[in-house]
Amino acid sequence: MPDIGYLNGRFLPLAEIAISPDDRGFLFGDGVYEVIRAYHGVPVFWEEHYSRLVRSAAEIQISFHIEAQDFCSLLLNGLQQSGYSEGKIYIQLTRGVAPREHGFPLNTEPTVFISFRELGALPMEMIKQGVKIITVPDIRWDRCDIKSLNLLPNVLAKQKAKDANVFEPIFVRDGLVIEGATSNIFIVKEGRLRTPARNQFVLAGVTQQQVINVAQEHGQKVKFDQITLEDLCEADEVFLVGTTIEILPVVNVDGQGIKDETPGPITSTLHEQFVALVSQLSSPIISE
Amino acid sequence: MPDIGYLNGRFLPLAEIAISPDDRGFLFGDGVYEVIRAYHGVPVFWEEHYSRLVRSAAEIQISFHIEAQDFCSLLLNGLQQSGYSEGKIYIQLTRGVAPREHGFPLNTEPTVFISFRELGALPMEMIKQGVKIITVPDIRWDRCDIKSLNLLPNVLAKQKAKDANVFEPIFVRDGLVIEGATSNIFIVKEGRLRTPARNQFVLAGVTQQQVINVAQEHGQKVKFDQITLEDLCEADEVFLVGTTIEILPVVNVDGQGIKDETPGPITSTLHEQFVALVSQLSSPIISE
Repeated sequence: MPDIGYLNGRFLPLAEIAISPDDRGFLFGDGVYEVIRAYHGVPVFWEEHYSRLVRSAAEIQISFHIEAQDFCSLLLNGLQQSGYSEGKIYIQLTRGVAPREHGFPLNTEPTVFISFRELGALPMEMIKQGVKIITVPDIRWDRCDIKSLNLLPNVLAKQKAKDANVFEPIFVRDGLVIEGATSNIFIVKEGRLRTPARNQFVLAGVTQQQVINVAQEHGQKVKFDQITLEDLCEADEVFLVGTTIEILPVVNVDGQGIKDETPGPITSTLHEQFVALVSQLSSPIISE
Repeated sequence: MPDIGYLNGRFLPLAEIAISPDDRGFLFGDGVYEVIRAYHGVPVFWEEHYSRLVRSAAEIQISFHIEAQDFCSLLLNGLQQSGYSEGKIYIQLTRGVAPREHGFPLNTEPTVFISFRELGALPMEMIKQGVKIITVPDIRWDRCDIKSLNLLPNVLAKQKAKDANVFEPIFVRDGLVIEGATSNIFIVKEGRLRTPARNQFVLAGVTQQQVINVAQEHGQKVKFDQITLEDLCEADEVFLVGTTIEILPVVNVDGQGIKDETPGPITSTLHEQFVALVSQLSSPIISE
């Protein structure tokens, strides 16, 4: 079965979906996006992703006209058509199609594009052994709290990490650890969890928030905090979080091992607790 | 006649051109672009635009595989098909089509898209009376020397200017004037021309360079320099330059008049000299 996509009200084989070259997503990166992971056919945390999409859109003055329940139905419908139980749903909203002028076009409907793909889960080895990361200067714009399509610096940083044979580049701005190109980051020191303070330079992660909730429910202390490069390198444990990677231990930063270069106990426990949570959330069969 | 476009080797009616939703231009803004103005059917300064396109592409590690002479032939061919004598040629190069992953895809051909449109020249009134501008904080990334598709901050700033009923927003970073959202800027003080020093925060403008050349050929002093917001407000003359706007006088910055709020003599003379130059460059009929 071919992969399924959705464009402005219609489901189509993904390969048949045609974007106009005048789409402002193509010309300016003038849009926002979300990635949602489906477990057992259930788009987990879809409400959180929906809220963030609406918020990102509002920040750049695009109105997202699909209501929450319709959005959910759309995801379930697409997932069902795709046939993927473990799926990766990509949702992109742009300011629409208009002859190229920087200012907002009048009377233009936003473009809503969604793709439904099979999840390429991480190799179990990565989760068990942990991954390496590098730090890179944060040369991105000043509104990384918006999940926008302006991702060229993320692309370049990710490639730099690939070239260095490591999993993820971590942006550092003014000496402070911000986030990964495709993830948020946590450190553990003396039993306490810390993740970078939320501001306009960092995305409020959906998985990040869920991990905080899970940790706190299990009595773990968590703090949004300024994290220096030194804090990162001297942490007892480090891990990345994200929709597709869930919780991924980091064992090496810039070529320097974190403790004994094996995933730490708090990270492993949190991972088990997180897996239990999503398993619970996706166990009932949801019908439309 | 419908507008003409070009995609990866084929000319087509623009309305029939279909971009894949997996194009990295659409997903990440992972690409670069140029705008070339045609006068009397001649794509003026095409070599300078071509060089900058190749340079931008190289900076983000996309190889642009079209040779200079083939590029010129392509532009002339498209212009002829379009039927526009006064044309706006938009060229966009992306890293190509691949399932969404931030790192560079392997064995993917770049996407080359070109549109040929009629030039919407500025109202003569604007050129004669001059325009107003506002200054805005430069929240863009740190590599604005690359003419990339990551233009969301430019879009938002341009809209802010539109909302304020002025022509252009000028980015200011650390107290220094950088450039407009769609233009470079010059100031004149005591008979001397100054334009912001070139570095990673500012695009090396094709029209900017031509204006410098024209000015120097006519014995005018020009300097790449640090220009403060104060310098801008206290200038004798201010003007914007760009491919489609050529040379556009500025008479008001942030609601404050520049001198007597009429275009200055040096700006007007430069404009005449520039118009004479492009007229000369486009007067011979170029055949392929």
